[in-house]
Amino acid sequence: MSDVLIREVGLRDGLQLVKNILPTEKKIKWLNKQSLLNFQEIEVTSFVPKKVVPQFFDAKIILNEANKISNLTSSVLVPNLFGAKKALELNAQKINYVLSASESHNKANVNKDINSSINELNEIVNYNNNLEKKSSISVAISTSFGCSIEGKVSPNKVLNIVEKVTHLGVDEINIADTVGYGNPYNVKYLFKHVIEIAGKDKIFAHFHDTRGLGLANVIAVLELGIFKFDSSLCGLGGCPFAPGASGNIPTEDLIYLLKTQGIHTGINLNSLLDFCKFIKDWFPDEKLEGKMSKAGLPVGF
Amino acid sequence: MSDVLIREVGLRDGLQLVKNILPTEKKIKWLNKQSLLNFQEIEVTSFVPKKVVPQFFDAKIILNEANKISNLTSSVLVPNLFGAKKALELNAQKINYVLSASESHNKANVNKDINSSINELNEIVNYNNNLEKKSSISVAISTSFGCSIEGKVSPNKVLNIVEKVTHLGVDEINIADTVGYGNPYNVKYLFKHVIEIAGKDKIFAHFHDTRGLGLANVIAVLELGIFKFDSSLCGLGGCPFAPGASGNIPTEDLIYLLKTQGIHTGINLNSLLDFCKFIKDWFPDEKLEGKMSKAGLPVGF
Repeated sequence: MSDVLIREVGLRDGLQLVKNILPTEKKIKWLNKQSLLNFQEIEVTSFVPKKVVPQFFDAKIILNEANKISNLTSSVLVPNLFGAKKALELNAQKINYVLSASESHNKANVNKDINSSINELNEIVNYNNNLEKKSSISVAISTSFGCSIEGKVSPNKVLNIVEKVTHLGVDEINIADTVGYGNPYNVKYLFKHVIEIAGKDKIFAHFHDTRGLGLANVIAVLELGIFKFDSSLCGLGGCPFAPGASGNIPTEDLIYLLKTQGIHTGINLNSLLDFCKFIKDWFPDEKLEGKMSKAGLPVGF
Repeated sequence: MSDVLIREVGLRDGLQLVKNILPTEKKIKWLNKQSLLNFQEIEVTSFVPKKVVPQFFDAKIILNEANKISNLTSSVLVPNLFGAKKALELNAQKINYVLSASESHNKANVNKDINSSINELNEIVNYNNNLEKKSSISVAISTSFGCSIEGKVSPNKVLNIVEKVTHLGVDEINIADTVGYGNPYNVKYLFKHVIEIAGKDKIFAHFHDTRGLGLANVIAVLELGIFKFDSSLCGLGGCPFAPGASGNIPTEDLIYLLKTQGIHTGINLNSLLDFCKFIKDWFPDEKLEGKMSKAGLPVGF
């Protein structure tokens, strides 16, 4: 049915920077609709403190609703053990734990050093292992190519983290180009070495289009046999360090690209573009991205 | 100094769809400034009837000014022998003659069939050959991957045209994805075969970002050894058949991509981004594209 796994992150990474709180019923409508469009996994919300990101005040409700949808893996972002425990109590099917390859970014994002983050991941893995019904544990390595504080991040730093988290027994490693420092050259280099350590099957690619190279980077990792991607509908989201800059690669553009390469996605692009239009009206104050929603499908596609 | 030849087409392909006429002195400022930024070739104007595209009412003046700039190849678009003769009289260094691979698009664009277009190109080549001081003759094959009237265009149609125009002895062949039907797969396929017929050195790639794949297509042909590209500053321009859709790949994003791949461009990207900001103020009514002008250079780049 599908050669790829596309995880929609609009409801988490996308909404994270949206100032107006999207009403809970709209979030629920979004995840139900997108699941009906054959998406197999959605990052549905984030278990971060409400004070830090008020947008996710309804994380519990959203996760509960997501869990009612059959054929959907609902994953949630957690920044720490506390968030992970809450999410696991609520039967999150997958925990997306986040740390950064840049020490300064990790400090700014989760207020600890990378080693402490890895130790906390270890606690999460152990906690989960002792549960009667285990969930999947995914770790996102943010700023895997660079960050706005430190600049370029050395591949060795990332590979060192990949080795450690692989040793902890995580189910999935998400190499994230959080602020658009990746390009086809350094992306290919890093993923090649990540694959050598962790194997292809565990790896997700999370690209942002900050500097226009998001889809070129997708092609680069497809050539290495990576078929798991994060993306955000209408490119919802942005970059806190570059006002007006683009965020995640747009889901509909990613799917168009994949289809042109002969890769089965299991998703009807016409229906998805209709859904994009529907969603767009919810965000009158956001600069939405994505070319397909403006250009439409090629004639006869 | 430079491994690539980037032809700026903002003053022609970019301005073509801009309704407000840019004052002549601004056009002249643009081409002088961009030449100072080390651009080796600029498509400076178009010799089309004023009634069809009023924007180019000042084609003669612009070409004359461009010819005063040393170290700059000034090329001009011509749709027919009449336009070519005018441009050659004014000492255009390069003639960019345009025809389409889609029969319906050629009819819509230049009001003749493809064979007639090729015959007219033959007349232009002969006319030029008889001049004391010959100019370069370039032919752009528009809609080389598809068009909004016919849909997908078969590679064989394009290759057939490539064979014919090669036989006529043109200096350059510009494979143009006019409305964004190209993708890394069909781009690689077509260029591979075009190279077999015409050789690498004669070939330019002209990509639009209509469906988000412009830069991914650049990577695809770089891998085949193609190093000549058209692009438009700030992605100025658009698509007459898809309102709001993007036009040419943005020059500044193209140059960023090339630099990340270790390719020398001879162009200072910081200065170019400053120039983008300067140009943007001239087009308050246009939806300009390009990610680099919003995100800026990566820290430490």
